[in-house]
Amino acid sequence: MVSVPARRKRATIHDVAVEAGVSRGTVSRVVNDEPYVSANARAAIEAAIEKVGYVPNNAARSLVMQRSQAVGFIVHEPHSLFLEDPNIGDILLGANTALSHADYQMVCLIIDSDRDTARVARYLSGGFVDGVIIVSARQNDPITRVVEKLGLPTAFVGHPPDLRDLPFVGIDNRTSARALTERLLDTGRRRVGMIAAALDRDSGADRLAGFTDALGDAFDSNLVASVPLYAYAAGVAGMRELLQRSPEIDGVFAASDAVAAGALEALRDAGRRVPEDVGVVGFDDSAWARRTQPPLSTVHQPASGLGAGAAELVLQQLRGEATPVGGLLLQTPIVWRGSA
Amino acid sequence: MVSVPARRKRATIHDVAVEAGVSRGTVSRVVNDEPYVSANARAAIEAAIEKVGYVPNNAARSLVMQRSQAVGFIVHEPHSLFLEDPNIGDILLGANTALSHADYQMVCLIIDSDRDTARVARYLSGGFVDGVIIVSARQNDPITRVVEKLGLPTAFVGHPPDLRDLPFVGIDNRTSARALTERLLDTGRRRVGMIAAALDRDSGADRLAGFTDALGDAFDSNLVASVPLYAYAAGVAGMRELLQRSPEIDGVFAASDAVAAGALEALRDAGRRVPEDVGVVGFDDSAWARRTQPPLSTVHQPASGLGAGAAELVLQQLRGEATPVGGLLLQTPIVWRGSA
Repeated sequence: MVSVPARRKRATIHDVAVEAGVSRGTVSRVVNDEPYVSANARAAIEAAIEKVGYVPNNAARSLVMQRSQAVGFIVHEPHSLFLEDPNIGDILLGANTALSHADYQMVCLIIDSDRDTARVARYLSGGFVDGVIIVSARQNDPITRVVEKLGLPTAFVGHPPDLRDLPFVGIDNRTSARALTERLLDTGRRRVGMIAAALDRDSGADRLAGFTDALGDAFDSNLVASVPLYAYAAGVAGMRELLQRSPEIDGVFAASDAVAAGALEALRDAGRRVPEDVGVVGFDDSAWARRTQPPLSTVHQPASGLGAGAAELVLQQLRGEATPVGGLLLQTPIVWRGSA
Repeated sequence: MVSVPARRKRATIHDVAVEAGVSRGTVSRVVNDEPYVSANARAAIEAAIEKVGYVPNNAARSLVMQRSQAVGFIVHEPHSLFLEDPNIGDILLGANTALSHADYQMVCLIIDSDRDTARVARYLSGGFVDGVIIVSARQNDPITRVVEKLGLPTAFVGHPPDLRDLPFVGIDNRTSARALTERLLDTGRRRVGMIAAALDRDSGADRLAGFTDALGDAFDSNLVASVPLYAYAAGVAGMRELLQRSPEIDGVFAASDAVAAGALEALRDAGRRVPEDVGVVGFDDSAWARRTQPPLSTVHQPASGLGAGAAELVLQQLRGEATPVGGLLLQTPIVWRGSA
């Protein structure tokens, strides 16, 4: 890039045209990579661009071309969860890499308050992005409504419960939870409970449904503790509750690895050995899973693949291609470690 | 917002003018909140905006007004560190809240590869943001050069070593590390070592300098292990190295909480009790600090305040106000828990 002193007036397309001795229309064709420009004129214009330090104003171009070459990534999480969620960082980086390869700029927008919702809605309406990826959408999410009205190419990570016809990428939480619980039962546990979390979301409700499927007739609602968030502290509280209700419990499915890490703390405090006295399994295969003592048996959540997949769904729409009906479900292998 | 079928052509200022029976110039004055419009005309235009479903095109407005009402937040981290760093989430949310209150949209841009660097540089040059916050800048960071050339209002979280005259908000790592080490020495430890990390960054180098200051004549370079990153695995490796070099070690300052958590694992594996046999202190007061067994004695890093402070420095520049010379240093209280 050419050195331009700070705050100097930007070079314009007019400056380039004067320097190169051509019309502004010709400069514009070169800048926008259009045909019908002679090799000589192109060379003169490229030299002039370098000399005057011209940088195309993309905000202006986005107005003319009706595209910004940017895709929004909307994170809609209450404060504490954004910091606790082990997946968001990986989803973010997976989407960024995929968009980067297609030469799109990913712009991450955080919604942390109602004020943010209104402002992000204005931003999306304003022509600053060509498409949108939304994570953690909730029922009747106002941002989802805005995106739908604007007709912006959109993909969800996880499916918003009320908008199942929009493109999404996700995992089959119910089947994964069932397979994991069956594996836990296969270790010979007799009294298996669950710390269910976030039952107001599809993921939370589906994990509980999978647990229930696996238990079948042996299901005992007394062995299910429900906590509001996928969070460490919630895991501590949930495990204490289960120990109190049913001291003979010998197996626990925690709805996420963070919840499982909290459960391990509560079990340690209660003098229970893991996995000897109680087998514990988590969900996510996040950084938590390798750091607890013992490390967690869990379901691998392909977070980076979810981000990349959502980016690909948006890019397909931007290219005018069809997207898969019913969304895209990614594989979730079980990873068996020392906690069960 | 008015309901508009997806993909319908956007209503323009022209549609509003026709509906209200006024000129486009008058509509434009109302949309841009300018004076000299009669109360009757204003009411007619507001009704027309509502009726035709007009949403101002902010990309177009940003071209005319020379401002986008958006501030970029650039995260420049290698993949793994972005996921490990306990502070980035809090810094991000602190900045988002401060910018939101000033009605600016924060757009977070991730740099994860050289390709990203070039594209983010183009984006910043393109008029999409009015200012920039940069975290984790490194020596000769190309993005820093781009921002400097563009003359964009900028603030750093932490100070880039080569650009000390640009506005920044940070902490005094050296003084904080010295105070923490002195506190550890006061517990009666005789052989105190350090797991130093990220010595290519100011923060890493300054924390080691503070440790050295506190030890004075008792400083023994054999008791310093250097690891590349502020990461859990690096803490495990660093602690093993120190135990091998100096089995009688009875105190350790780990350069971050994640490093300290790794050190605890290595100490546990070696059969050392914490704090009885070895006192351990960390740095950051991140979520790690409350989750290890025992919880960590550490320095509180005001991450959310750093984000809010950087946002305020950018807003000051956007308002044309002076920013503090030499940057803004925030308080870092010591938090004493069970690990030392």
